[in-house]
Amino acid sequence: MFETVAARYLGEIEYQLRQIVANHLHDEPGFGVMVRYAMGWVDQYDQPYSHMTGKRLRPMLLLLCNEAAGGDWRRAMPAACAVEMLHNFSLVHDDIQDASELRHGRSTLWKVWGTANAINAGDLMFTLAYAALSDIAPDVSPEQVVDLWRIFNQTNIELTRGQHLDMRFETLDYVTVDQYISMIAGKSAALLAACAQMGSLVAHNDTKRADHYADFGLNLGLAFQIRDDILGIWGSPAVTGKSAATDIISRKKSLPVLFALERSSELREIYKQTSLTDADVIRAVGLLDDCGARDFAREQELKYYDLALAALQQASPVSEARLMLDSFVSFLFSREY
Amino acid sequence: MFETVAARYLGEIEYQLRQIVANHLHDEPGFGVMVRYAMGWVDQYDQPYSHMTGKRLRPMLLLLCNEAAGGDWRRAMPAACAVEMLHNFSLVHDDIQDASELRHGRSTLWKVWGTANAINAGDLMFTLAYAALSDIAPDVSPEQVVDLWRIFNQTNIELTRGQHLDMRFETLDYVTVDQYISMIAGKSAALLAACAQMGSLVAHNDTKRADHYADFGLNLGLAFQIRDDILGIWGSPAVTGKSAATDIISRKKSLPVLFALERSSELREIYKQTSLTDADVIRAVGLLDDCGARDFAREQELKYYDLALAALQQASPVSEARLMLDSFVSFLFSREY
Repeated sequence: MFETVAARYLGEIEYQLRQIVANHLHDEPGFGVMVRYAMGWVDQYDQPYSHMTGKRLRPMLLLLCNEAAGGDWRRAMPAACAVEMLHNFSLVHDDIQDASELRHGRSTLWKVWGTANAINAGDLMFTLAYAALSDIAPDVSPEQVVDLWRIFNQTNIELTRGQHLDMRFETLDYVTVDQYISMIAGKSAALLAACAQMGSLVAHNDTKRADHYADFGLNLGLAFQIRDDILGIWGSPAVTGKSAATDIISRKKSLPVLFALERSSELREIYKQTSLTDADVIRAVGLLDDCGARDFAREQELKYYDLALAALQQASPVSEARLMLDSFVSFLFSREY
Repeated sequence: MFETVAARYLGEIEYQLRQIVANHLHDEPGFGVMVRYAMGWVDQYDQPYSHMTGKRLRPMLLLLCNEAAGGDWRRAMPAACAVEMLHNFSLVHDDIQDASELRHGRSTLWKVWGTANAINAGDLMFTLAYAALSDIAPDVSPEQVVDLWRIFNQTNIELTRGQHLDMRFETLDYVTVDQYISMIAGKSAALLAACAQMGSLVAHNDTKRADHYADFGLNLGLAFQIRDDILGIWGSPAVTGKSAATDIISRKKSLPVLFALERSSELREIYKQTSLTDADVIRAVGLLDDCGARDFAREQELKYYDLALAALQQASPVSEARLMLDSFVSFLFSREY
């Protein structure tokens, strides 16, 4: 069923994204190729690349919420392209900040072209996101244009705030659950909130209903991130595509970990070690289980998941589009523990 | 006379910039301080900093062109804040890209907080620039809002294009004069063009007149950058605040240098050396003089300066504001060779 949703939108999303890049970038050697590479369209030699690198979940969510709010999804396409371009911009800068060398199985942009070029390519994509959004102008009212623009600004501030907290947490011994939720609200959930809110706003200039959609997107994002945290420790490698307990090995301060760090002095000692043996990792997972970290994280996931569905109910989505939204949400949460 | 212009606007520019930062940034430890530091308001411990670090030339140009086009400059303040915030964002990312350790006599942001935080702080300032601009909405027509937004997008694409070329030129043996002009048009002049154009547009929805202002700003920016290039080689240290021939020492491919590199094989040999002695630097300056690089650069400066004034004439500025604009231009070009 998710495949039906994806098929409905994907071709047009990809086409419009390519149009934006083509319309705004003139032929400056070595310039546009970085954007096309980041979007997953070409390899580093600007030759067509055959593997889809991103799922385009954010523009899909935006278009689904647009339809659920009674809109004609094609009119929401500029906003959909804006959130996807923004997401990809943030990955380019994140990969520099985290010194990540791989993304979607390829070298990250900074690994191929160097940090200075990658910063600049990210800045360009950030601008292209705004350029995409500004194309909504003729199809919505002037008030809606400004509202959408402001939501986008606020979202970007939230993204940088979340990124700031994420980087700062690495330097702290203790992080509270509230601080953690505040971080993922900015870093992960804010953009999903914006997708849902903007999709609704383009359909209809009803800011109260759009706020319900924003709540839906925000809580959906929180639940999704917490599920990702659980999978990062207890997920089977076959599902996550990573090794087991990968977040323990990298000592990531995810929700289950910081819950357990507050409760287990033995875990705190393990986390102070300069390197972890296989036995340390197994022991750490055992300590997490013993103090109830997995159950706690699962409860938190369900809490935000229920809040998301309640907010969606409040938004009174059109029934046919609601079914598609449900299948989208099911897909998001289909990775088993 | 420039002091009168500055006094007229500076207090309000500074006040409004601080308002934007205060309104959009909630208290997240270590987050807002980076923006305040970059704007020159505080030191790295968030304590008030007493030295003005930037001249705010860009918002001044915007406000002057607004008045010259018959506007009420206070209504143009959101756009003025946007260009200043954008300029400061670009400095934060430029300093990372160039590995510059000092700006305005202080450590650069990445030197104080590290590269990852500096990238993020720059991204935040980039967003704040857009947030500032979006505040223009109630005071101009919906069409003007969208026009201003699109000019801003296009300017930012130009900035990244210019930055891309600047970085790429460092890897090339030869750069033509046309390529160089195209680079500084993006990196330096595009934002001045946007200042003049946006200032005019806020005053009056006359896109043709605004285009003349854009031409004025663009050519002004080109002339200013070329003058900077001349000063970088022949400027006296007392005027530039740098050592003599600083651009030769750093082997910067500025306009006089690339003109001379095309004409002097001896200079090309010197530029291939891994390090330059004092005698090499003196010889290089002599070669530049001999092949007419200084005269050529001076001609180019005057050419763009004249084009700027002709475009301003075409824009038919209000006479009182015209006098202020003239004093602003005189100030820009007051540094003697």
